[in-house]
Amino acid sequence: MTATLPAGLEATVRVPASTANLGPGFDCLGMALGIFDEIVVRTTESGLAIRVEGEGADDVPWGPTHLVVRAIERGLESLGVWADGLDVVCRNVIPHSRGLGSSASAVVGGLAAGAGLAAKFDPALRLDGDRLVQLASEFEGHPDNAAASVLGGVVVSWTETDAEARAYRAVRLDPARALRPVVLIPQERSSTAHTRGLLPEQVPHGDAAFNVSRAALAVVALTERPDLLMPATADRLHQTQRAPALPLTTAWIERLRDAGIAATVSGAGPTILALATTEFPADLRELAEKDGLRVVEPGIADGVSID
Amino acid sequence: MTATLPAGLEATVRVPASTANLGPGFDCLGMALGIFDEIVVRTTESGLAIRVEGEGADDVPWGPTHLVVRAIERGLESLGVWADGLDVVCRNVIPHSRGLGSSASAVVGGLAAGAGLAAKFDPALRLDGDRLVQLASEFEGHPDNAAASVLGGVVVSWTETDAEARAYRAVRLDPARALRPVVLIPQERSSTAHTRGLLPEQVPHGDAAFNVSRAALAVVALTERPDLLMPATADRLHQTQRAPALPLTTAWIERLRDAGIAATVSGAGPTILALATTEFPADLRELAEKDGLRVVEPGIADGVSID
Repeated sequence: MTATLPAGLEATVRVPASTANLGPGFDCLGMALGIFDEIVVRTTESGLAIRVEGEGADDVPWGPTHLVVRAIERGLESLGVWADGLDVVCRNVIPHSRGLGSSASAVVGGLAAGAGLAAKFDPALRLDGDRLVQLASEFEGHPDNAAASVLGGVVVSWTETDAEARAYRAVRLDPARALRPVVLIPQERSSTAHTRGLLPEQVPHGDAAFNVSRAALAVVALTERPDLLMPATADRLHQTQRAPALPLTTAWIERLRDAGIAATVSGAGPTILALATTEFPADLRELAEKDGLRVVEPGIADGVSID
Repeated sequence: MTATLPAGLEATVRVPASTANLGPGFDCLGMALGIFDEIVVRTTESGLAIRVEGEGADDVPWGPTHLVVRAIERGLESLGVWADGLDVVCRNVIPHSRGLGSSASAVVGGLAAGAGLAAKFDPALRLDGDRLVQLASEFEGHPDNAAASVLGGVVVSWTETDAEARAYRAVRLDPARALRPVVLIPQERSSTAHTRGLLPEQVPHGDAAFNVSRAALAVVALTERPDLLMPATADRLHQTQRAPALPLTTAWIERLRDAGIAATVSGAGPTILALATTEFPADLRELAEKDGLRVVEPGIADGVSID
């Protein structure tokens, strides 16, 4: 039986952006970044009121805003509760369609907001991290961004498929202290759906083996051996294939790697992720800004929080 | 200028067997196993005397025995020394052509023996672990077994290729304490060259991504989270493809996994590697022995040692 939440409950959620792939870890490695969306949700007597501030405020309602509401509803439903009315405020900071996991953050934030409302009603109603990863990944179709936004830090995620269901799973790893992610964010947007279409159906066995070794190495480099980040971020499964669609991104990855900074495409792009271990060079920052890139050093974030 | 070693120097080397791939980590993950070959080498006035005891004693000289001598010579050469004569005793325990890295062990042992002789002449003459990995992998063509025999423990290895050279690299990881490798060794031999021929040139992108995620997870499972060994040892890049050539091996992997024990092909087979975390079940051991499998629990070894 579904319990209806009384009006007047409120939950505030802070959810980090994320970067995925990190080079070789296609659909598997992720990292939470200290750029946060905030969602404030309140139960009301009836109806649905949404206010969006910041990024995406002018978007059509079936964009990420809509995702947040769908995710709130899914969060409530998964805990067996319902609300007759909701008042939702989205304070969006994570750039959209740039490869910073904004849709995963919207979903994770919405689910957590729903769970937050339920917990205000009955503290026993909770969604743990594993459950949040599962529910959020069901929206996304892959767990890497969602797991990073849920668990924080660096994540390894994977998918277990059997006849009945698809289980999305992830573990959080503590990142090496020296790690300083820097994101270089282009002005233009990119569509993951489009860039996914650029991936080949078949790849050489040698390229698969190449990424296997580098993804295994990436786990070591990201947690213990940042000195190995250059070989640990090399990739043959997606970056080259998408390069023609991302010329500025590709040029910057090459420029940064030539300067000894481990750079990769963030998610499906166009943002560039640089995994620096020292201060980001001022001359490169200046050059990037001249190219229209916004250079942000967000730090590695913890996972979603609910108040 | 090459210095000639005086007669009468002696070095003894103890080199572990290894298992490679560990499921998803094709040509990349390795583990040193506590089954040891011993090589005793002595400089003489002239000539080459070889005595082989144990495994391979009846083999033709261009088998692993010959490899040991070639590797000793390479070890000496790389340190700028030479010997007019050598007396070599190989006490072989590692089974040959079973997927336990015996050829890598022979090469690593030979290189270390050469280095050991050189160090008896001049303690400044040493081959460090990185150099041993490089030289041994040049013999092997891939670094996974060699790196395990050099460094011990669990290794992640990779290859960096540029226009001029191929650098074989590896890092050692400390295995989780709960890890209890068990090898089930068939009587019949297998040829890596043959089983490599069974691998397809192209693989689906999804299978590549599958192994990428599981190899990354394997690093976590082998070091910190042995509870995740089942998903962390799943593979789509080599085991299914080689299964027709290894029916007994394949049947046993399935049987062990059905019993909740993370089992994979050891290297290119036919040995089965089971990564148990509790005592290996007596009924399975008995059943395996009835199937002609030798069941050994060797423990995880440290790398090659030189006296």
